[in-house]
Amino acid sequence: MTEPLRIGIAGLGTVGVGVLRIAQKRAALLAARTRREIVVTAVSARDSSRDRGVDISAYDWEDDPVVLARRDDVDVFVELMGGPDGPAKAATEAALDAGKDVVTANKAMLAIHGQALAQRAESQGRVIRYEAAVAGGIPVIKALTEGLAGNEITRVMGVMNGTCNYILTRMESADLPYDIVLQEARDLGYLEADPQLDVGGIDAAHKLALLSAIAFGSRPDYAGISVEGIERIMIDDIRAAADMGFRIKLLGVARRTDRGLEQRVQPCLVPAESPLGQLEGGTNMVVIEGDSVEQIVLQGPGAGMGPTASAVMGDICDLARGSRVATFGQAAQSLEAVPSAKNGVPAPYYLRMGLIDRPGTLARIAAILGEHGISINRMRQYGHGGETAPILIVTHQTTRDSLDAALRAMRGTDVMHSPPVALRIERI
Amino acid sequence: MTEPLRIGIAGLGTVGVGVLRIAQKRAALLAARTRREIVVTAVSARDSSRDRGVDISAYDWEDDPVVLARRDDVDVFVELMGGPDGPAKAATEAALDAGKDVVTANKAMLAIHGQALAQRAESQGRVIRYEAAVAGGIPVIKALTEGLAGNEITRVMGVMNGTCNYILTRMESADLPYDIVLQEARDLGYLEADPQLDVGGIDAAHKLALLSAIAFGSRPDYAGISVEGIERIMIDDIRAAADMGFRIKLLGVARRTDRGLEQRVQPCLVPAESPLGQLEGGTNMVVIEGDSVEQIVLQGPGAGMGPTASAVMGDICDLARGSRVATFGQAAQSLEAVPSAKNGVPAPYYLRMGLIDRPGTLARIAAILGEHGISINRMRQYGHGGETAPILIVTHQTTRDSLDAALRAMRGTDVMHSPPVALRIERI
Repeated sequence: MTEPLRIGIAGLGTVGVGVLRIAQKRAALLAARTRREIVVTAVSARDSSRDRGVDISAYDWEDDPVVLARRDDVDVFVELMGGPDGPAKAATEAALDAGKDVVTANKAMLAIHGQALAQRAESQGRVIRYEAAVAGGIPVIKALTEGLAGNEITRVMGVMNGTCNYILTRMESADLPYDIVLQEARDLGYLEADPQLDVGGIDAAHKLALLSAIAFGSRPDYAGISVEGIERIMIDDIRAAADMGFRIKLLGVARRTDRGLEQRVQPCLVPAESPLGQLEGGTNMVVIEGDSVEQIVLQGPGAGMGPTASAVMGDICDLARGSRVATFGQAAQSLEAVPSAKNGVPAPYYLRMGLIDRPGTLARIAAILGEHGISINRMRQYGHGGETAPILIVTHQTTRDSLDAALRAMRGTDVMHSPPVALRIERI
Repeated sequence: MTEPLRIGIAGLGTVGVGVLRIAQKRAALLAARTRREIVVTAVSARDSSRDRGVDISAYDWEDDPVVLARRDDVDVFVELMGGPDGPAKAATEAALDAGKDVVTANKAMLAIHGQALAQRAESQGRVIRYEAAVAGGIPVIKALTEGLAGNEITRVMGVMNGTCNYILTRMESADLPYDIVLQEARDLGYLEADPQLDVGGIDAAHKLALLSAIAFGSRPDYAGISVEGIERIMIDDIRAAADMGFRIKLLGVARRTDRGLEQRVQPCLVPAESPLGQLEGGTNMVVIEGDSVEQIVLQGPGAGMGPTASAVMGDICDLARGSRVATFGQAAQSLEAVPSAKNGVPAPYYLRMGLIDRPGTLARIAAILGEHGISINRMRQYGHGGETAPILIVTHQTTRDSLDAALRAMRGTDVMHSPPVALRIERI
């Protein structure tokens, strides 16, 4: 057995405590598997006196994570503080500069500063591993970076924010409006302090930026992601989608096209009987497609102490075993800056609209779609009591640009009762 | 960039050709990802003149795979011949003895000789990697050995033979009997030359032996697996299971219990709405449960040129990157010989029987179950025309031993029209 692997952990929130618990409870198992003792030497957090339900008396305490990151008796710096900048970034940089590998769960930091940090690691011959940053306990970073390394990846997508999936499935199962379910999620502690991170799609976009960089050998490009949250999804849309055989999911989708890198987070319709369509509650699911493997689907808990700590510990075990894969799966210097292909890629869309109930209105809408080269796949008009006729349309493939032009034209008529809702349908 | 990684491939069937195609078509991508050129130096197969649809003129040809395995210009020996013994084993041993790492898709060889081969590799400081041996393109060996290394694994199970899942789902969807669908599968080329490997559960058992060894740190114990195939599943069972909210799947299940290692391959009932219950056609699915990660579900193609070659190439990339994980995830010498816990673990069961239609027969059956400590959860009696009353019973948890005793007692009565069918219900 070689020398112990010495780790220093900054951040003792839920995940940090979970990692300490595994390190303590499973020390023998970890040593058998990695053929090395894994030893925590020092920890750092905001408050040294707080009772976290785990014994930290055996570890040195550092008030300053940067000091922890530089300690001579730390081989791997484990960053679990969070936040794209501030102490997390400063300590990560300090660790890399001191020649240490870094394990982190910090999706925001890597999505925004990933390229610079990966280059910094590389210049020291070090790596940053971040399995816990995407889809919690699912080893999706490993599957994509290592297991599928023989593939040209054609698409990566998934439900990567459990809170949004909880809200959308709960709206459907309980037939409740968005605001009520959002409050439920808040009461249950499912929401981030800033709920926009969840329901605004930002958290999912951070994760997508990382998957996308690995999949396509491109620089992480969080700013290039088109992001739309779930705030405008109405129970009517969920019901109507179900009636057409679909379910609405907040999907992150990345694909490399002839026109550049398509990266988007948005509520999409997926077939109700597909794996993504059947995904319930807070579970995460990632779908990876490659030229050889065709399609694999990975499902598991996207958050929580145990699953997230499992992912962090998996990274630590890799380093203990001497497996050290480049941060984004290839030399950081070789990652390409690929331009965004935002609205050009054709897809079918779902449209929901309320028309003024008088003769000729539907013909008018159909004509506008036709004028913009958009053909109708399916249409339903529902019975109604008032002056508004609810209409659902599923289009054939069209570009977002054509669709937006058609929607503008519709809004310019006098037949719309309210602005139309348009949601992309993602082929699975 | 370091020296190229030189590979020799023995066996140019579907998978071998797939690996060559990736090596040729994706050479630049592989080099970018592993920072090393991956070069095929020599190949071996039965017939050098056959047109395989891939250009092999650039590679040296060896008639004897053992000679190939020993070549000085081969760093990694890729064994794709198959078969538990014979040339595959001889060449694998030769490669290990010559100090080379081995990549293989050979589940039978590893299930039966895995312990000896892993020790042989270890004595040379080498490893055997075999992602393609289990669940085709799904990186499940990697997920279990590496991604979840921080977990004490509590259960691993799955649908790992696509042909059986095709047969069972096709019987249900087309309402056809087993024999007809078996012939369809044969005509479609889905069956192994020896169909017992598929429908007899042997192929699934080979795979389970490997997963089980990694999961529980135990010596691969193929002989200790209780194996039952799908040959006796009748369309009546599939219909009856569906009527009770279940689907029948050929499951491999491994679990470490207080009484020893439970390893079984058998047709089981699973809830129709569970991921395993929803799995259609030839797709594979593996469910892994650990003390920290809770449950992850991995789904993908279990066979085929592209997916299997993707798995082989993933292993090759790992070796090119210098990641060399012990064959079963820990030192071969440290793997324990764990005794089998075959029939002792309690589970609920589904029972289908035809009773002679006269007063008191059902009471008699219920009494026998009660005498054996088996309580009834649900029961259905169906309307019928003839002299037989079809009865379905779902029991509460019981041991297989108690159940077998009860079934023996039932067969000793004069109320059974035909021997009862008993299938385990697996909790998901």
